[in-house]
Amino acid sequence: MTDGVVTGEAGGTRAQRATLSEVAALASVSVATVSKVLNGRSGVSDETRSRVESLLDERNYNRRTTAQSTAPLVDVLCFEIDSPFGSAAIAGVERITREQGIGMVVTGTQDSHQPTAAWVEGVLRRQPIGIILVAAALSEKVKARLRSRNIPVVMIDPYGAPGTDAPSIGSADWNGGYLATRHLVELGHTRIAIITGPDDMLASTARLSGYRAALDSAGLRPRRDWIKPGKFHHDDGLSQGLELLSAEGDDRPTAIFASSDIQALGVYDAARSLGLDVPGDVSVVGYDDVSIAKWAGPAMTTIHVPLAEMAEQAMHLVTRLRDEPELAFRRVDMATTLVARDSTAAPRA
Amino acid sequence: MTDGVVTGEAGGTRAQRATLSEVAALASVSVATVSKVLNGRSGVSDETRSRVESLLDERNYNRRTTAQSTAPLVDVLCFEIDSPFGSAAIAGVERITREQGIGMVVTGTQDSHQPTAAWVEGVLRRQPIGIILVAAALSEKVKARLRSRNIPVVMIDPYGAPGTDAPSIGSADWNGGYLATRHLVELGHTRIAIITGPDDMLASTARLSGYRAALDSAGLRPRRDWIKPGKFHHDDGLSQGLELLSAEGDDRPTAIFASSDIQALGVYDAARSLGLDVPGDVSVVGYDDVSIAKWAGPAMTTIHVPLAEMAEQAMHLVTRLRDEPELAFRRVDMATTLVARDSTAAPRA
Repeated sequence: MTDGVVTGEAGGTRAQRATLSEVAALASVSVATVSKVLNGRSGVSDETRSRVESLLDERNYNRRTTAQSTAPLVDVLCFEIDSPFGSAAIAGVERITREQGIGMVVTGTQDSHQPTAAWVEGVLRRQPIGIILVAAALSEKVKARLRSRNIPVVMIDPYGAPGTDAPSIGSADWNGGYLATRHLVELGHTRIAIITGPDDMLASTARLSGYRAALDSAGLRPRRDWIKPGKFHHDDGLSQGLELLSAEGDDRPTAIFASSDIQALGVYDAARSLGLDVPGDVSVVGYDDVSIAKWAGPAMTTIHVPLAEMAEQAMHLVTRLRDEPELAFRRVDMATTLVARDSTAAPRA
Repeated sequence: MTDGVVTGEAGGTRAQRATLSEVAALASVSVATVSKVLNGRSGVSDETRSRVESLLDERNYNRRTTAQSTAPLVDVLCFEIDSPFGSAAIAGVERITREQGIGMVVTGTQDSHQPTAAWVEGVLRRQPIGIILVAAALSEKVKARLRSRNIPVVMIDPYGAPGTDAPSIGSADWNGGYLATRHLVELGHTRIAIITGPDDMLASTARLSGYRAALDSAGLRPRRDWIKPGKFHHDDGLSQGLELLSAEGDDRPTAIFASSDIQALGVYDAARSLGLDVPGDVSVVGYDDVSIAKWAGPAMTTIHVPLAEMAEQAMHLVTRLRDEPELAFRRVDMATTLVARDSTAAPRA
């Protein structure tokens, strides 16, 4: 099924590909040295490696590998693989790779969202048919090395402002923020707080912007002290939830929109520890609709992010990018939807 | 770091290995045919494939692959990869493979716990340094094919009664069941129910047996109608929880020991829908200690299964098995511990 992709050279859709020996001649090195660079082996100086990589990229060299055609792999680099969001994304990609007979290599990142140098070397040696980033990022240098080997990269839920050099599958974050907030407005809430995601993620900014827009549409003004920073984590939900819900009288919001389901669970904890009922005293909306949202007590109203469909789109792009390089500029945002469950209700009169 | 393992042939610790041509001669086929069988390619009859595999196994043929030495992989076959248990196990293995510069290929199984035929073919083509099964199972035929390629298999939390042909890393399930039940007894409960895991999993049987033993030690008799079958799922916890907690008077248990954290969340739901408080009206103990246990409301008392350490042990075995075949008989059960949180309390007087 993926043969057409793996042996892209035979397809000949990209013209003027250089051969290994042409690249070697241009770089004034041996064919063996070019081969070492291609396969991520040691014994090449940084200067030479960099020169050869530039030439491979420039001259559009397209390597053929027997490894790929006999055992195709896709590399997934995923931020926090054991988080509910990470594991759902991985499960989505896995379902597609399994159907297509492709092996899925999984590597996690923490904190930095960036892979280690060893990961890059591993990828060059494995020569996957492509790479899927899940809320992870690559430096320009790493992107150039992958491009020189013609290994396509597709991003799911891109972290930070995406460049223009890799296709990305996102979801409609602004709409999600808007839908969550409008839902609370429609229930009659006027004191609505938000706990955000990391401010260096475009997704967080878009959700916050949707929140502001929905308040604006309802003639409500966002209060600065009801916009609390977070990082999608349980801890943020707990600490910011405690601060928001400890306020007195009209300074206390009657509804909190959290930017992830896990964060919303932290708000549940905050409410519980203050003796407040969800949704009786405070309505809570989460984000992502990972499996624990429906199992939470009360079952959580949240924004559904269609991770399974996003993973499918990402795999679709990865397997087609070599033959259809114009897809490199594709950006898709899949629709988000509101899932109303039991954590939201009209505010007490 | 793994070179000594990958090129096991050079180590020479296993004597009398047959060459490819010797196997071909014994099987009365060409070397090309043996090679096809070794690399999982098509164009070989089932009968021939089976005969060649038996000979490879019998004669202890040990293939060398360049693919492995340049890009070592470990295959993980995991039951329900997007469950909290599955994703925690995968994250545990990933941490070790990342440190060791090994790629981790992940495949999920559902329902059957068994891989597809395509997975087996993929593994033979990829030639991983080993396979880790997480609550998954392989047929005897598949095990024989892997053995014929000298691809070692290690099991984490084995499903069903383990054979004697693969090392396994389990956890002390009987102790876990005993600890959970004794904790409830020590709080003063005498009406303690259990919802079990699948009855074809040894882990479930051991936990149930630990429950019975702890009751017995306390001079309590297990009631047949308080032992409810389940499958580790949220649904079981909800439906069996409803049945247990709907009983009247002394027929209603004051404590429920669920066989997984997710199942315990189902019991939380059952209690909530009946207007019962956890732990005021019913104490609940989970099992596994996946991350959502501490985030649940109330934070869940549960049995900690040391998945990270189990994954580390499994990787350790996988990388050593080729050179130390005596490890094939190793069974390790890692200790389980009680984590007391807020879902258990003394019964109401």
